[in-house]
Amino acid sequence: MHIEPEIGSQFTHSFKFSQEDVAAFARVTGDTNPLHLDADYAATTAFKRPIIHGMLGASVFTKVLGTEYPGYGSIYVSQTLNFLRPMFVDTDYEAVFTITNLNPEKNMAEISTEILDAQTRKATTRGVATMINKEKF
Amino acid sequence: MHIEPEIGSQFTHSFKFSQEDVAAFARVTGDTNPLHLDADYAATTAFKRPIIHGMLGASVFTKVLGTEYPGYGSIYVSQTLNFLRPMFVDTDYEAVFTITNLNPEKNMAEISTEILDAQTRKATTRGVATMINKEKF
Repeated sequence: MHIEPEIGSQFTHSFKFSQEDVAAFARVTGDTNPLHLDADYAATTAFKRPIIHGMLGASVFTKVLGTEYPGYGSIYVSQTLNFLRPMFVDTDYEAVFTITNLNPEKNMAEISTEILDAQTRKATTRGVATMINKEKF
Repeated sequence: MHIEPEIGSQFTHSFKFSQEDVAAFARVTGDTNPLHLDADYAATTAFKRPIIHGMLGASVFTKVLGTEYPGYGSIYVSQTLNFLRPMFVDTDYEAVFTITNLNPEKNMAEISTEILDAQTRKATTRGVATMINKEKF
């Protein structure tokens, strides 16, 4: 897709995860914490029901940054992640990407990355990505 | 496992990923960037061969922090990730966790998280995790 490499440019991506996605993420990463997989165990915790792995939620950042905005040819330099609120399956979320800094000499951009609950508009995850892309920045 | 909640305490975990793991991670996260999946495409890039998703490599942090060190009952507050060098399939890596700060009043610890190539000892990924665990910290 075409990017206007300007500070303040924004891109939004809607997504949700299923319990099958959570189970698949647990299998491939080895993070089999029952908080994510076992409703009976999760009921004994402060969360009351299973929550998505924070890193699975945050994987929407690598997906969008790597394939769409800025997309192929990007080098992922760094990412910060603040897990502000739990995320749940079968729930609509929006990932919002905002260019906050540009360094054309290094073909580098700093992009604010945020996940919002699509209904409540509350942020669940917030961070900053640094990307290099020779064609886009 | 038993943790000595002391600054400087360390835990090491060895791991590797297969190309099947990379394909499974691409499926569940939607990050289908050909840099990770397509050897012909990867050959045209600076990396010359497919690299693992940085976020798949970093998933060793959520795995170990969530299931072993400190383990169940943890709340993942934040994680920073610096992707320093590419990671490859069928390659032995070590994740090294070091407690760098403790706040017993908040049951909180800051843990340095690092991935090393087991052979070259060079760091591929580096960051800091903040965890809450009422029983361990």
